[in-house]
Amino acid sequence: MNDPRQLAQTRQAQHVTELIDFLRIPSVSTQPQHAADVAAAARWLAAQMTAAGLEHVRVLTTAGHPLVYADWLHAGSDAPTVLIYGHYDVQPAEPFDQWETPPFEPTVRGDYLYARGAADDKGQVYVHVKAAEAYLEAHGRLPVNVKFIVEGEEESGSVNLSRFIPANKALLAADVALVSDTTILSPDQPAIVYGLRGMVYAFVDVTGPGRDLHSGSFGGGVNNPLNALAHIIAQLKDAEGKIRVPGFYEGVRPLSAAERALLAQFPLDGDAWLKETGAPAQWGEPGYSLVERLGARPTLDVNGLIGGYTGPGAKTVIPSTAHAKISMRLVPDQDPQEIYARFVEYVQTVAPAGVTVQVTSAHHAYPSLTDYTLPAMRAASHAYAVAFGREPVFMREGGSIPVVSDFQRHLGLETVLMGFGLPTDRIHAPNERFYLPNFYRGVQTSIEFMALYARLFAGDDPAV
Amino acid sequence: MNDPRQLAQTRQAQHVTELIDFLRIPSVSTQPQHAADVAAAARWLAAQMTAAGLEHVRVLTTAGHPLVYADWLHAGSDAPTVLIYGHYDVQPAEPFDQWETPPFEPTVRGDYLYARGAADDKGQVYVHVKAAEAYLEAHGRLPVNVKFIVEGEEESGSVNLSRFIPANKALLAADVALVSDTTILSPDQPAIVYGLRGMVYAFVDVTGPGRDLHSGSFGGGVNNPLNALAHIIAQLKDAEGKIRVPGFYEGVRPLSAAERALLAQFPLDGDAWLKETGAPAQWGEPGYSLVERLGARPTLDVNGLIGGYTGPGAKTVIPSTAHAKISMRLVPDQDPQEIYARFVEYVQTVAPAGVTVQVTSAHHAYPSLTDYTLPAMRAASHAYAVAFGREPVFMREGGSIPVVSDFQRHLGLETVLMGFGLPTDRIHAPNERFYLPNFYRGVQTSIEFMALYARLFAGDDPAV
Repeated sequence: MNDPRQLAQTRQAQHVTELIDFLRIPSVSTQPQHAADVAAAARWLAAQMTAAGLEHVRVLTTAGHPLVYADWLHAGSDAPTVLIYGHYDVQPAEPFDQWETPPFEPTVRGDYLYARGAADDKGQVYVHVKAAEAYLEAHGRLPVNVKFIVEGEEESGSVNLSRFIPANKALLAADVALVSDTTILSPDQPAIVYGLRGMVYAFVDVTGPGRDLHSGSFGGGVNNPLNALAHIIAQLKDAEGKIRVPGFYEGVRPLSAAERALLAQFPLDGDAWLKETGAPAQWGEPGYSLVERLGARPTLDVNGLIGGYTGPGAKTVIPSTAHAKISMRLVPDQDPQEIYARFVEYVQTVAPAGVTVQVTSAHHAYPSLTDYTLPAMRAASHAYAVAFGREPVFMREGGSIPVVSDFQRHLGLETVLMGFGLPTDRIHAPNERFYLPNFYRGVQTSIEFMALYARLFAGDDPAV
Repeated sequence: MNDPRQLAQTRQAQHVTELIDFLRIPSVSTQPQHAADVAAAARWLAAQMTAAGLEHVRVLTTAGHPLVYADWLHAGSDAPTVLIYGHYDVQPAEPFDQWETPPFEPTVRGDYLYARGAADDKGQVYVHVKAAEAYLEAHGRLPVNVKFIVEGEEESGSVNLSRFIPANKALLAADVALVSDTTILSPDQPAIVYGLRGMVYAFVDVTGPGRDLHSGSFGGGVNNPLNALAHIIAQLKDAEGKIRVPGFYEGVRPLSAAERALLAQFPLDGDAWLKETGAPAQWGEPGYSLVERLGARPTLDVNGLIGGYTGPGAKTVIPSTAHAKISMRLVPDQDPQEIYARFVEYVQTVAPAGVTVQVTSAHHAYPSLTDYTLPAMRAASHAYAVAFGREPVFMREGGSIPVVSDFQRHLGLETVLMGFGLPTDRIHAPNERFYLPNFYRGVQTSIEFMALYARLFAGDDPAV
């Protein structure tokens, strides 16, 4: 069989079986107890890359979790080089009791494969391994040079990859970066993300008494860290959702009339979207559409908060400490370092008396925008159209992929964000899943992209 | 030996050994997994009462945890009857890792006995069992009639005792109630509490999305339950600590000039008090002294708050729900039912859009004040003076003892609050302890009280 597309189609069941093995490994990068699992996931992926026919496969040690590198560089010096990025680490799976089937016992129900990491990002990165394998088996070669760099710290801030990239420019040199870690619009409507939000993630710790105090004996005499933390958080946004950190919006590149018109055409059904969230109503910054708020405007969210007695029933305690995890999603051209500094200063300004407040940085990510008229973007668009039978829409995505701005700043690479996830995949939440038909079409899209990009790069503009 | 005082002194080591057995039973009334332990503590206490020579000892079943009743009623119809109340249940011991020795493995270090419930209230209730035992052994009789009623739900709101009292007025009929569940000022300075704060304890649950959402994909489109809960809490008190619930202060009986002068004489060392709390500064309602704020003014504290991801590291999630435990300490003549209704209404008024907010009641308690010129109050004052070698001071206490107002309303009884705890006992917190010299002096005080109250009640005013 010398057609990689047909070859991949006959292998679908095998591909799912392998992906299930990958998903069984609980590679939670933020939880120290899973460090060995993260390393095991790296080794598993490297072994699969070798089996796929990729070369120079290496598990690279870092100060944190390892990177997995592989390449295939025999397409010729005239052919372009594609740097394929993904991550094999996953979000924590808590709360476990809300999973219908355990997060690390992957289960197929209907058209979906359920597991932590199914869509984010093991399933999506594996698409490209299987595409390269099918192409190599069918033709004995690839039409483009490829390099894979797959990290194990995306969910914990990509700190070590951020250091690795500027120190290994030759190893990673390429013509374009290809990342599959985003969603398309619906099962049959592909989408290319041309904008990503950045991030500032901070921890706020409020300390009051030196120990937990009885709220009857001591209440009225000392400030309460939980009340104080609530006061701080309430000062971060106004009642309508506008962020009150001074200068927060200064760096935001205003949306042009043209882009607002483009985004207005984006086929988002607000009612269906709301139903999917389960929230009682939409909510957000006035003056912007839902599509704009989700991708083109910055946000501030409390992602976690704990303090005092949180077990069943009541306990009358003034807690010694209270802890909040707060993240801000940024848009071009907000600078995460500057936003973090303004955030720290503002939190201290609004902190009530009678407690001490400490802010620490968890991680940062730069926002990014990609020019969607590039040859690789056109190749991706055509590849989607072939594999899905429908032209993709262009969109801004609300999430952050820290590496994209690193590729731009250190390697001079634009990134094609070729996602295969769905908005209903429940990434970062219980019952995460991957829509298997898009897993299969993803492999087809990747094969098609390599073929089309080689031709477009050579100046041959195929009429697709 | 026919002096109960001397008899009790020779038995101190035996009393401590018995108390340690009592404290070993983890009778946490708010945690369902400890239901059997609570029942075991009731049976243990009943057995000790029988051994002490008390009569009609019964473990009374309720809809919740049992009540323990005992009496001795042979002092004669001219002698007064004292209703002694206490509780054998304890607060949850969490966080366990902050205990130097495990909460239910009682340990003597220096002059202290460390265990959950040591001071609150097992140690204090046991004082009176041992005083009665010594008196009965020495004289074969008591100078007053006594009835014990000891409950297992004080830390969870005394719901079933509140129902039991009005339904069993004859059983509980007495001339005065005696309660040891408060603190004295310092090891050598006894104190009689003449005022207690009441309580409203409520749970606030905020629900937004139907499931946890990725804060990148959905941030900006829905309201966040944690941000919303912080907004609600921040509206409950102003920046200086004044409670903003409309009408909250309406029922507060203003402090008279005489009482403010009395409280101003109360020997509280503010610096030492602050050092004991470990807080960076005192804090509270302007216009009132620390002593007034701690006992004679109402408060509002968040006792626990949880939502979103609270494990180590970062997770970018908009949580589906957020939960807060909030209590208000009330003073005469605030009505808990009315304050709760105003609280519920206000929380709904300030609740942000885009989420649903539910308030539920955990429990209520009425505040109380006792006339300190009553014969039983004078007997208690004299008994303290004899046992401690120093006259007690009179004070208002910040905590709540729900039963006190029930005694007043249903049985027409004034309550003598004869405490033996210390402000440094760490009740409700890790490393709770009881100062053993005050355990011994407590038994002496109880013996002295019975003797003096019998004489005062008979019109014989001893010059102590």
